[in-house]
Amino acid sequence: MIAFIDKLRAQWARTGSLVCVGLDPECDRLPAVLSTPGAAIAAFCRAIIDATHDRVCAYKPQFAHFAAVGAEEQLATVIDYLRETYPHIPVILDAKRGDVGSTAAFYAREAFERYGADAVTVNPYLGGDSIAPFTAYADRGTILLCRTSNPGGADLQERLIEGEPLYRVIARAAAGTWNANGNVGLVVGATVPSVIADVRGLVGDMPLLVPGVGVQGGDLAATVALGRDRHGAGLIVNASRSILYASSGPDFALAARGVVETMIAQGARVEPS
Amino acid sequence: MIAFIDKLRAQWARTGSLVCVGLDPECDRLPAVLSTPGAAIAAFCRAIIDATHDRVCAYKPQFAHFAAVGAEEQLATVIDYLRETYPHIPVILDAKRGDVGSTAAFYAREAFERYGADAVTVNPYLGGDSIAPFTAYADRGTILLCRTSNPGGADLQERLIEGEPLYRVIARAAAGTWNANGNVGLVVGATVPSVIADVRGLVGDMPLLVPGVGVQGGDLAATVALGRDRHGAGLIVNASRSILYASSGPDFALAARGVVETMIAQGARVEPS
Repeated sequence: MIAFIDKLRAQWARTGSLVCVGLDPECDRLPAVLSTPGAAIAAFCRAIIDATHDRVCAYKPQFAHFAAVGAEEQLATVIDYLRETYPHIPVILDAKRGDVGSTAAFYAREAFERYGADAVTVNPYLGGDSIAPFTAYADRGTILLCRTSNPGGADLQERLIEGEPLYRVIARAAAGTWNANGNVGLVVGATVPSVIADVRGLVGDMPLLVPGVGVQGGDLAATVALGRDRHGAGLIVNASRSILYASSGPDFALAARGVVETMIAQGARVEPS
Repeated sequence: MIAFIDKLRAQWARTGSLVCVGLDPECDRLPAVLSTPGAAIAAFCRAIIDATHDRVCAYKPQFAHFAAVGAEEQLATVIDYLRETYPHIPVILDAKRGDVGSTAAFYAREAFERYGADAVTVNPYLGGDSIAPFTAYADRGTILLCRTSNPGGADLQERLIEGEPLYRVIARAAAGTWNANGNVGLVVGATVPSVIADVRGLVGDMPLLVPGVGVQGGDLAATVALGRDRHGAGLIVNASRSILYASSGPDFALAARGVVETMIAQGARVEPS
């Protein structure tokens, strides 16, 4: 298996796109044209994928949207489809796992062995030994929450520890002691562009997964201007609902592609400086 | 549905036990006598439950142990069995969820509607608006990570914010602004008894879920001495592996009950002062 980071870099190079499509299927928002009983979620995701695969750097299925309706099999189907049809595109399972070491090993097994994801999002609140079972999979990515895109992200993540915001403590550990295998990334929300610049200054060329540019109202232009790495890449700019539900008509997949194209035109692209 | 906190208080009163059995099934540690193909996990959990139900205050199925092997249906079967057979015993789904508000609503739906759990564990790193979708279910419990039982729990949770450890910041918010519906609890590990005393001093009679007394080596006597509330209860003292795998022979369920009895004898019981 090609390592997550190599897959990601190759896909940035291949497409020039920094856009990641978040697969957050909501049963009551699926296009009426997809009335496949029992498998509409997977069919919807496949249609979105087929319409966007050559213009994205990654896909990010979001666990809760499947789990809330007992659709783990459809989640597995979607990831299997990606691995078989577009094996060069990295798949980030957005599950925000986090538990004591012995249990974290089961979560890592879930993400990397059961679902076969290339990377998984992990909550760092439980510290180093809760992260190690994920990073131990050297060819997979572990993307730690750093500064999240929601308003409540400030509640703890911007509190000062010895004069430094908590998110910086996370960023430095992620670039240092927690990154022995060189396979760590960070989540930094597009709703706080100044934080993206701050984190980029701490972590070198580490991949940053940046949610919040769509419905959440993050600033795409500022995000990419402040967040690109030395090679003009380094960002996984995610949008979910703004892409998935761009149209509820039979043209939903084409409309989704249109939003991706617009994001690229607005700056979500590789631009060596 | 009876509110989580009322169920818990009634079960403390009924059994006098502070013991919670963590349901962490590991396929390769199940007793040989349980060779039910495909359903051994659920059969194992049912046998443990039947052998211990009158001596515990709660059960805590741990999500990853089911998810790693694709056994969500067996997780649902176990929780359904508890609700039908022992409807008075609270079920805490230990899933440590945490995400931005719109996604947290899907996780709350998973825990409370899909699985029908009485309470769920939640990671507070994303702040107040990530917690609100859980606490909005007024009759269910939201148990926030505060100071976890693992060594890495100190990495962030004991860092000082304005002179105060992060876990205290969580405890105060959990007892204050985050607790508008009076249905919040906290996780504090038995491996740090002084922290249990500290947190109890901040949160009044709030229920504390205390993992770490079994294999992790926490101090049961100190935990209960320092952690009980004004009514001599207030603690959900969890052990998982030390109970589940007390014997690998056909006597495994009886051996599990024996460990629960020993925990009660060692102090995991309601004792009004």
